Amino acid sequence: MKKFKCCLFLIMIAVTMAGQKKTFTLEELMPGGNNFASVQPENIRTTWWGDTPIELKQDGCYTINPKNGTRQLLFNLESINQWLNETGSINSCAGIQFPYPEEKLAFIFMRGKTILVDFEKGTIAWQMLTDPKATHVDWNKNSRNLAYCIGQNLYVQNAEGKVQAVSTDGSNDLVYGQSVHRDEFGIYKGTFWSPNGNQLAFYRMDQSMVPDYPQVNITTRIATTMPCKYPMAGEKSHHVTVGVFDVTTGKTIWLKTGAPEDRYFTNITWSPDGKSIYILELNRGQNHLQMVRYNAKNGEKEAIIYEEKHPKYVEPSSPLVFLPWDQNKMVFQSQRDGYNHLYLMDLKAPLYDDFKPAAQGGIYKEYAHVKQLTSGNWVVLNMLGFNVKDKTIIIQSNELSPISHNVFSVNINNGKRKALAPQTGVHTARLSASGNLLTDTYTSPEVPRSVNLIQTSNGKTINLLTATNPWEAFDTPEITCGTIKAADDSTDLYYRMVKPVHFDPNKKYPTIVYVYGGPHAHNVDASWNYKVRGWEIYMAQKGYLLFILDNRGSQYRGTAFENVTFRHLGETEMEDQMRGVAYLKSLPYVDSNRMGVHGWSFGGFMTTNLMLTYPETFKVGVAGGPVIDWNYYEVMYGERYMDTPQENPEGYKQSNLRLKAGNLKGRLQIIIGYNDPVCVPQHALSFLRAAADAQKQVDFFAYPGGEHNMFGRDQIHLHERITQYFEDFLK
Amino acid sequence: MKKFKCCLFLIMIAVTMAGQKKTFTLEELMPGGNNFASVQPENIRTTWWGDTPIELKQDGCYTINPKNGTRQLLFNLESINQWLNETGSINSCAGIQFPYPEEKLAFIFMRGKTILVDFEKGTIAWQMLTDPKATHVDWNKNSRNLAYCIGQNLYVQNAEGKVQAVSTDGSNDLVYGQSVHRDEFGIYKGTFWSPNGNQLAFYRMDQSMVPDYPQVNITTRIATTMPCKYPMAGEKSHHVTVGVFDVTTGKTIWLKTGAPEDRYFTNITWSPDGKSIYILELNRGQNHLQMVRYNAKNGEKEAIIYEEKHPKYVEPSSPLVFLPWDQNKMVFQSQRDGYNHLYLMDLKAPLYDDFKPAAQGGIYKEYAHVKQLTSGNWVVLNMLGFNVKDKTIIIQSNELSPISHNVFSVNINNGKRKALAPQTGVHTARLSASGNLLTDTYTSPEVPRSVNLIQTSNGKTINLLTATNPWEAFDTPEITCGTIKAADDSTDLYYRMVKPVHFDPNKKYPTIVYVYGGPHAHNVDASWNYKVRGWEIYMAQKGYLLFILDNRGSQYRGTAFENVTFRHLGETEMEDQMRGVAYLKSLPYVDSNRMGVHGWSFGGFMTTNLMLTYPETFKVGVAGGPVIDWNYYEVMYGERYMDTPQENPEGYKQSNLRLKAGNLKGRLQIIIGYNDPVCVPQHALSFLRAAADAQKQVDFFAYPGGEHNMFGRDQIHLHERITQYFEDFLK
Repeated sequence: MKKFKCCLFLIMIAVTMAGQKKTFTLEELMPGGNNFASVQPENIRTTWWGDTPIELKQDGCYTINPKNGTRQLLFNLESINQWLNETGSINSCAGIQFPYPEEKLAFIFMRGKTILVDFEKGTIAWQMLTDPKATHVDWNKNSRNLAYCIGQNLYVQNAEGKVQAVSTDGSNDLVYGQSVHRDEFGIYKGTFWSPNGNQLAFYRMDQSMVPDYPQVNITTRIATTMPCKYPMAGEKSHHVTVGVFDVTTGKTIWLKTGAPEDRYFTNITWSPDGKSIYILELNRGQNHLQMVRYNAKNGEKEAIIYEEKHPKYVEPSSPLVFLPWDQNKMVFQSQRDGYNHLYLMDLKAPLYDDFKPAAQGGIYKEYAHVKQLTSGNWVVLNMLGFNVKDKTIIIQSNELSPISHNVFSVNINNGKRKALAPQTGVHTARLSASGNLLTDTYTSPEVPRSVNLIQTSNGKTINLLTATNPWEAFDTPEITCGTIKAADDSTDLYYRMVKPVHFDPNKKYPTIVYVYGGPHAHNVDASWNYKVRGWEIYMAQKGYLLFILDNRGSQYRGTAFENVTFRHLGETEMEDQMRGVAYLKSLPYVDSNRMGVHGWSFGGFMTTNLMLTYPETFKVGVAGGPVIDWNYYEVMYGERYMDTPQENPEGYKQSNLRLKAGNLKGRLQIIIGYNDPVCVPQHALSFLRAAADAQKQVDFFAYPGGEHNMFGRDQIHLHERITQYFEDFLK
Repeated sequence: MKKFKCCLFLIMIAVTMAGQKKTFTLEELMPGGNNFASVQPENIRTTWWGDTPIELKQDGCYTINPKNGTRQLLFNLESINQWLNETGSINSCAGIQFPYPEEKLAFIFMRGKTILVDFEKGTIAWQMLTDPKATHVDWNKNSRNLAYCIGQNLYVQNAEGKVQAVSTDGSNDLVYGQSVHRDEFGIYKGTFWSPNGNQLAFYRMDQSMVPDYPQVNITTRIATTMPCKYPMAGEKSHHVTVGVFDVTTGKTIWLKTGAPEDRYFTNITWSPDGKSIYILELNRGQNHLQMVRYNAKNGEKEAIIYEEKHPKYVEPSSPLVFLPWDQNKMVFQSQRDGYNHLYLMDLKAPLYDDFKPAAQGGIYKEYAHVKQLTSGNWVVLNMLGFNVKDKTIIIQSNELSPISHNVFSVNINNGKRKALAPQTGVHTARLSASGNLLTDTYTSPEVPRSVNLIQTSNGKTINLLTATNPWEAFDTPEITCGTIKAADDSTDLYYRMVKPVHFDPNKKYPTIVYVYGGPHAHNVDASWNYKVRGWEIYMAQKGYLLFILDNRGSQYRGTAFENVTFRHLGETEMEDQMRGVAYLKSLPYVDSNRMGVHGWSFGGFMTTNLMLTYPETFKVGVAGGPVIDWNYYEVMYGERYMDTPQENPEGYKQSNLRLKAGNLKGRLQIIIGYNDPVCVPQHALSFLRAAADAQKQVDFFAYPGGEHNMFGRDQIHLHERITQYFEDFLK
């Protein structure tokens, strides 16, 4: 009897395992979910020690043999912590770096401690103790000097530990050594060491003339304001200057950037000899770029070496890169021919030419000889570095397909490209010190993850990891990708469609358009499952069809594709999305009486706009962190695409969703982070006011303490909330 | 053919009119609705000119013959505006007053202008021009002096127009001449003229030690804070002092109220001779009341004349009233025997007695001879004044029924009462100068409105208006009233039930409990349709049954009934409401699977609490402007019922709804005015945070610019919103 029971049990398990696949929960599908990691494709973490690839694991660092991929322990966590002795300890080796190709030194950074461990001798080779309140730390491996901020002041600590205050008058009005211009133009930090690490260029931002947005903190005994500087479109903007601190002399000089003061000083680049600083300067109107060289010793403006103008906007996003083997030549990126490409400038070959025509009525002026290195109807996504021996540049581009990101080498002499990682998919790569090798991680619609070691000279590849499908045991929806024509009837737009789980073509399904639609982002590419988001799987399980279309205005398709939206954000984007809707309506299994729309940020703007502009089409919408009125958005991003409200009153009016509140017919929920410092609450709240005034019912939720996006457990709560809304009103 | 058509048309109208009654819209049912006035019972507006009743109409003022009620034109609007000449004009005579019984003078107040028109001569008899920025204006008819505020400073203008600044250092921290203690203890203004109008007692409030709640104004170009002083329970509270300004000398003296400074100085009363000022002083703990006399010339504290202590709280709400015929005797109100009653004190008959026991463990001490004038298990609601000739006091009380408000005369010698307006219903009355007549307006469950002129000596009544039922043409629900036993199994609680329109006892209806439940209010009385709210009619039309129960803790039922909730607000109130639910569940036509709850303010607290405490009972709730945590409520109201958080940590914890957020099961929507200065947004927002942390979905809406209650068009929008929520989730 006992045996029989046991057998029955085993059979039941077998039936369950074979016949019934599992259903995902949000805890599995969303970052912040308790089981999120369990359904992610396996990954490894690598770094470079010169040209030696290293695998960083929790329990130790392993060298990877570039010939066959085999790993060998370099040192383990226990050893490291032994060597660190009383200085402190780490929980994992995953953050260790190897800054010196020729030396057996491991770099470890802990709060207040910067350490080099000699892993041959098993000792601390060097260390620096720093104020534990330090933020924005920036260490230079050549000088071993450290720059950091405490509050809004900037400090430098030299390799011997001596601290110098670069500024003392830092305040909420005057910020030193931090990112400026609201992280636009590729800016993400505020300190820039000279190559030898003895001079520090840094940003100083005077925002005393910028009003505070009154954010409210409800967690204090009685709620308090957390004033937050926010320059709104057309209003006064901050003034940025660039200082250069000499660690040896303790003196600061200021680059003489002159007036007007509300220009943008972007992509700070040191010359290899440390004598000059290059800045890509942009006027507040963002239609005139100047590449300017300053003397790093006295701050004098030495020369303009390149200029670009465009009737819409110019957007510098990448610093200059000097050739490692020729300090007189540097590579810069420009979209002047309509696509982002590489250009090589010979600084020693001056030109006396005038402005020349560029794409879309733009013009440019070269003050030195420039050679275009890449061209074509595709874009350079990223410049990884050089193979010094072969004299090639290693780039990522979407040359092979608008939705694929591959790795190429570009011969600097003849511009010839060689695909190093040509598989369809989205590749991200890191180059070794000399550039002879790269680690390439890619996913494709069918490949959850593949990590490879590639020789940049010949493309020879060794596989380091091929992840198995972590969704094997789950019931997954069919996910497809395709193109439709944009509203101009000619441009191809890429979409992703997620069909309901257990799809039956004879049924009609409620359908949700997920949208972002703004610049600098895309939703559809050739990564795993075409970049499907966990929430789409969740909804497909619940019987919804999801459709995601990258309209014109989105990323990586060239300037004309992006800037067609200039001065009337939302308009062309919606026209394209409605082509998507027309396509959906042509499908027999799409229930055109049950169409919803959801998006966040620019996608919240699009969602609200679509609900108000096409009230007969969309029955239900959920708009997160939406822009409602571009007047309330910030200067840098806002004026690039919309000009100022003074210059473009009609455009601001057309895109002001408050004025359309009376059109609302379906169910619309707006969700915000109550402390959103990006799309400030004034957007959503002013829309609630407008809706109430128009006697329209709009639903609303706010996450106190939440900012522009929700993280952690809030992300689970948020997506349950969004789901619930469609379940309540669309199903 | 033509004739036939016409007849058919008439028949159709007749059928429509006879057979089909109309359905209300929210525009008719809600204040703020476009057609609200059209369904309100007719009313008239009256005032007194000495003992002559006057009807105030838009087009003129009419004397009413007290013998037969006939009206005679006194003067019309056109005449008044002619007489006002270039001084200005008024749109209606409805605001005119007649301050002098013996003089033919009409008092007119316009922004910046205080005018007496001689309507016999047709001239301006007297006028005063004042700064148009003046607020809080307070005119004394004897001296014709005017007190007013500009900003936070207090000014006095004498009858000749001379302006004197009583204060010059007024600020947000220091407020002069305005109401204090957040309008609790019957306080509604900050200036008090002496009987002859030559001395002005006034409040000065130092709130520099009180933190600001950061209210946010989103209507400015970039949102701004509107700091708003808000003393939270257990935290530092403002300090109030009382000054006396002498208009003749221009000097101010301060009453020497002494320490501690955070006491409450309430119900300021001048002695008839203008030499003394009486204050009902209450300690911050609100359990010890002292009636104190101050010298109005030098501010000295002259005597304590009465004291009361109570283990829970004492709540003075009415000033002293001196007998018109005997300046040594005054009437005060006290709840010391458990019900609010009148007491007559003979100030010339000192007593040297000790504290004596009062109801519920309270004690009191009289320093002069006191006679209790009224007593019984009912309360004096209001003291209207005196019939000087008969030596009676005219009061309103609920002696005839807990839900009826009637008018009585009380013989001051023997305490005998005579019902002057005994009809079941809710009476409000205004007494003539000598008290020989009163105008009485009442409604009863069946009487939309009746206005009568009553002789206070004998109750003889002349009807001035009997309004017809303005709902005659509408389909109205059956509205009933009854009692159930409270959770103590003995106290009668009154409820109102509104059955669905076209009620069918064999059906089962979704049922909504509307609740307030807090002190100082009641929802059920014997006014028209038992005080039904327009929204209840709206819901009854949509097929809901509404149930409204005044639980213990609510108004007009004596101290034990009210203060049973002391230190644990919500607990007893909910127990009583659940008796209502038990009763509802016993009714065959109540669908106990579809029960909802809705309330605002304290009712929002109750609604949220009921949803979280009885998650199996209530499927849907809408909580407006709720208290979530009494820590966030203000000192005066909050500490009266809850003591401080330091004194009563357990009570604050038990009533902290954040801690119950995880219990949420049904659908709960919280709605607030985004700028609520009463239940500050910290309540609702902190609950949203708690709900998100507990992974519970709560719905939310905020009216930017809205305060504690919505007015005007927002009220329509709000009730459509509330309705929609029940329609979405309860129907």
